[in-house]
Amino acid sequence: MNLLLLEDGDFIAADRVLLQGRRLKHLQEVHRAEVGDSLRVGRLGGLMGQGQLLRLDSDAAELQISLEQSAPAKLPLTLLLALPRPKMLKRVLQTVASMGVPRLILLNSYRVEKSFWQTPFLQPEAIREQLILGLEQARDTVLPEVIIEKRFKPFVEDQLPQLAAGSLGLVGHPGDYPACPRAVTQPVTLAIGPEGGWIPYEVEKLAAAGLQPVQLGERILRVETAVTALLARLF
Amino acid sequence: MNLLLLEDGDFIAADRVLLQGRRLKHLQEVHRAEVGDSLRVGRLGGLMGQGQLLRLDSDAAELQISLEQSAPAKLPLTLLLALPRPKMLKRVLQTVASMGVPRLILLNSYRVEKSFWQTPFLQPEAIREQLILGLEQARDTVLPEVIIEKRFKPFVEDQLPQLAAGSLGLVGHPGDYPACPRAVTQPVTLAIGPEGGWIPYEVEKLAAAGLQPVQLGERILRVETAVTALLARLF
Repeated sequence: MNLLLLEDGDFIAADRVLLQGRRLKHLQEVHRAEVGDSLRVGRLGGLMGQGQLLRLDSDAAELQISLEQSAPAKLPLTLLLALPRPKMLKRVLQTVASMGVPRLILLNSYRVEKSFWQTPFLQPEAIREQLILGLEQARDTVLPEVIIEKRFKPFVEDQLPQLAAGSLGLVGHPGDYPACPRAVTQPVTLAIGPEGGWIPYEVEKLAAAGLQPVQLGERILRVETAVTALLARLF
Repeated sequence: MNLLLLEDGDFIAADRVLLQGRRLKHLQEVHRAEVGDSLRVGRLGGLMGQGQLLRLDSDAAELQISLEQSAPAKLPLTLLLALPRPKMLKRVLQTVASMGVPRLILLNSYRVEKSFWQTPFLQPEAIREQLILGLEQARDTVLPEVIIEKRFKPFVEDQLPQLAAGSLGLVGHPGDYPACPRAVTQPVTLAIGPEGGWIPYEVEKLAAAGLQPVQLGERILRVETAVTALLARLF
C-alpha cells in the first residue's frame, strides 16, 4: 500500500478522516505508523496529498489531510480481455488498475471455461476490492471502468467497431503477425486472448471489427504477463 | 503447460520417454490427452519437437518423440533483483524463465526483510521447480542461471563492475531520472529494487558500479510487474 485511499464515508470533516478495518490494520502492522507520522493519501476519484496521523489506537486511526496533487494520467486505452480463470482475474484486475488502464472489458471466448463466469470474484464488490489494491500499489485514485460482456459475437459485431473507431485496434496473438508497435501516441483498443489463445474465428471477427493481430515473439506468456508486456511496449 | 519438458531420467530409449507424477496428471486432467495425440515436447537444456502418445494409463504415459527445433533465443540480459518476499519470489522466478532471462542474481538490499532469506523457496530444488513452470509456459528448454548474493556491498563493489562491463547498466528506480530506454540492441545489466525501492546509498553504489537509474513513470509497480514492464520496454 503506497497510498492510503480515502472514501467519502471516511471523512468526519473536510480535512479529517477516521479509518478502521483493513487500512487501520495495515497502518499498524505493515507501516508500523505512529502519531505524528505523515503518510501519502488520496481521495477515491479525487486528489492525492499528505495525511498526518493525529490518533492511532485499536479502534481507529484519525488523520488530518491536505490534498492538492492530481492522480497520474491514465493510458489512452480500452483493454478487452478474455475472462481469465478466477485466481488470475484477481491479479489481472490489480495489474490493470496499477498500470493505469481506464477501461477494461471482460469478454467471453471459446476457450474461456464456462465455470469462470460463476466466480464470486466477478461480483462488483470483489472487482472493486482488487482494483483498489492496484490503485493503492501504483498511487492512483481513479477506479478503472470494468464492463462484463458474456457474449462474444454480438459484442464484437455490434459494439466493438464503434468503440474502436478512431483508435489503433490491436489483438495480441502469437503467430506470424507484425510485431506489436512501440511507443504509440494515439488511443489504442487492445484485445488479449485467454490461455490457449483466441480461436481463428475470433481473430477474424476481431479483425473485421478493426483490431489487427500483433505478436510479441514466440514465447507464450501468462495472461497477466502478456497484459503488462503489451502495455509497457505500446506506451 | 504449453510444452512438456523432458528430463534425462524420462528417457527409456533415444526416442522414447516414460512420464509419471505431475506431468502424467497434467496430461490426464488438463490436456485430457488420448493415445495417438501429438504434443509439444522439449528436452531440458536441448531441442524441442513433437511427442506422440503411445500409452496412457494410471501409472505412466509413454511417448515417442522427435526433436529438431531450437529453443527460443534468450534476452542479452543479466537481471539483478533485490530478493522479493517468498510468495512474490515464486511468481518472479516463473516470469523470469518465461521472458527468457538467462541469468538472475538475487541480491540483498536494506529493504529486504531478513526473514525472506530463510524461505524454503530459495532451496535449489524449489527454485528449479518454479523455473521449469516458467519454461513450460513459454515453450523454452533452457534453465536460467540463478545466483544468490546475500551481501550487497561486497557484491556490488567487487563483482558487479566486471559483470556489467561492456553492457548497458541500468537501475529501475522511480524518481527524477531519464525514462527507461526502448528497443536496445546491446547487452543489458538491469537492477530492480525491493518493495519500497533501493535506498539512496544503494542507488549510489549501483551507479558507481556502472548502473544508471532509469524510471518508468510515476506509478509504483509490484516487483513482478516492474520486471515484465522493464523487459518488454527494453527488448
